[in-house]
Amino acid sequence: MATLKIFSDSGLGGAAGRLLREGISPHELIESKNRLTSVLAQPIADPAFALADIAFGQPDVESIRNSENLKWLQVSSAGITRYDTPEFRALAAERGLIVTNSSSVYATACAEHTLAFMMAQSRLLPAALASQAANGDADWLALRGGSVSLHGQHVVLLGFGTIARELMRLLEPFSMKFTAMRRSPRGDEGCDVVSTENLASALATADHVVNILPENAESLGAINAERFAEMKPGAVFHNIGRGTTVNQDDLLAALRSGHLAAAWLDVTDPEPLPADHPLRHEPHCFITPHIAGGHRGESETLVRHFLKNFRKFIAGEALEDRVM
Amino acid sequence: MATLKIFSDSGLGGAAGRLLREGISPHELIESKNRLTSVLAQPIADPAFALADIAFGQPDVESIRNSENLKWLQVSSAGITRYDTPEFRALAAERGLIVTNSSSVYATACAEHTLAFMMAQSRLLPAALASQAANGDADWLALRGGSVSLHGQHVVLLGFGTIARELMRLLEPFSMKFTAMRRSPRGDEGCDVVSTENLASALATADHVVNILPENAESLGAINAERFAEMKPGAVFHNIGRGTTVNQDDLLAALRSGHLAAAWLDVTDPEPLPADHPLRHEPHCFITPHIAGGHRGESETLVRHFLKNFRKFIAGEALEDRVM
Repeated sequence: MATLKIFSDSGLGGAAGRLLREGISPHELIESKNRLTSVLAQPIADPAFALADIAFGQPDVESIRNSENLKWLQVSSAGITRYDTPEFRALAAERGLIVTNSSSVYATACAEHTLAFMMAQSRLLPAALASQAANGDADWLALRGGSVSLHGQHVVLLGFGTIARELMRLLEPFSMKFTAMRRSPRGDEGCDVVSTENLASALATADHVVNILPENAESLGAINAERFAEMKPGAVFHNIGRGTTVNQDDLLAALRSGHLAAAWLDVTDPEPLPADHPLRHEPHCFITPHIAGGHRGESETLVRHFLKNFRKFIAGEALEDRVM
Repeated sequence: MATLKIFSDSGLGGAAGRLLREGISPHELIESKNRLTSVLAQPIADPAFALADIAFGQPDVESIRNSENLKWLQVSSAGITRYDTPEFRALAAERGLIVTNSSSVYATACAEHTLAFMMAQSRLLPAALASQAANGDADWLALRGGSVSLHGQHVVLLGFGTIARELMRLLEPFSMKFTAMRRSPRGDEGCDVVSTENLASALATADHVVNILPENAESLGAINAERFAEMKPGAVFHNIGRGTTVNQDDLLAALRSGHLAAAWLDVTDPEPLPADHPLRHEPHCFITPHIAGGHRGESETLVRHFLKNFRKFIAGEALEDRVM
């Protein structure tokens, strides 16, 4: 087999960089000068890309369009926003370009982050950690009486993939009811599945709504005033998908009116949300800075996942986390 | 059967009070003027106690000693600190007094609170919720890289009862290793059990140490500098038992030296811990105000648990949560 050229703009230094270089050897690594760490950043075209057979990272769409040799792109994130357009899908189909993402790398951490959100809400941790209530006083009674077990509650999952599956597994001890909204139900979800059209009835009984939607033309601003109104009074809204799928003014209104009990957001629009954004000052809105997928050893996990697919690619086998 | 007199100092109003009154009917309820909500408060003797056949709440030891008819005491908490002395145990044995506690009522909430602590630590929630880090900056990378999954980690449980059992059940999806320290191993723990004597080797590999010890002569100040030194560097210490079982100066030193990564405390000594106590200002010490057992509908759960035992008592059956 001829030496393959693998383009990487992931800026992987240290152990992860060595792992990548050694793992693809004797094939050639082309490291981009333009290092990206996020699917949200705007990539800059790199002339070195033209020679690549394989790309690992977040290359810009124009470079992919102009490339002559590219056979496979592994996106280094779970989200594939910039590639998730009809135009790009058509280009990939026409060229026979394989596109995979790295969702397996982040799914466990994302599910664990969501569980942390749900448990923190269930046990009212933000208020409890800030409290110096004395045994028996009004604040203390409110904290004790306000804690509601997840046991038997209803969770609606907006979007259903590896994260949702892992979250369901982590929540198994709580005997919860799950309903998933999924574009293309496959029958292997292990829970009720609804479409966008009949989501309202599921939202009406949901205690927790977990938004894991990717960003695309269909999902932009999809969680709006109408959706919030459909949710059960007192529901808790979580977002670990993309900030742009939520109408944040509508979310703010739903929190201010008390219709939603709380919102837990790992993603916002923009990121970071400005310090003076009203959601930052809303008492029951809790925001983490897009870290749900993060975990110790993340770069190495990312490279190992690429190398696993690299070996499959060379062997002509089906790749994992294929999205196109 | 003669009418039984049931003394209650739990101060249960509203739905819970009605539930109790109706549940014991046609037997007689003696409601104490001296209402208590906590096993930690100092009870005041109530002359009405002398007539009681059954007590439900937190009566003072002297009243029990002077009582002529008392056959059964159900303590309205999980902790039985004031009754857990050799003198009281001898008194109970001599009189044939049955003592039960309410641990079943609080076990689920306590286990869930501990899971909330563990998940919040795993996902670095306190730091993440306070952060306005931008994608790619140093704080952001530290948060992402500092999050460590519970998966496969080692938990040491100091004390093993209904709370520990429920916590193990909730953590099942994480495939963790559990070691329990228990005074009297029974072989049904479902994990390794160690005694006080060989606890050190378990602590040496523990990622999370969960203290659920009740307060008694043996446990007072038992978690001290020596125990903290035995813990693995970077271990996380949780306390949902009693604050007095921990030497707080030693805990502070273990946090300040960085030997412990964090401490999560629902109980302290005293409660509430004064606002100027150094543990309140220690960056990796997180304190909730003794609310782990709290949950919506708690008073009703408490009464239902008493009534279940009341029916068993009348039928001459073995009572649940019997401690003496």
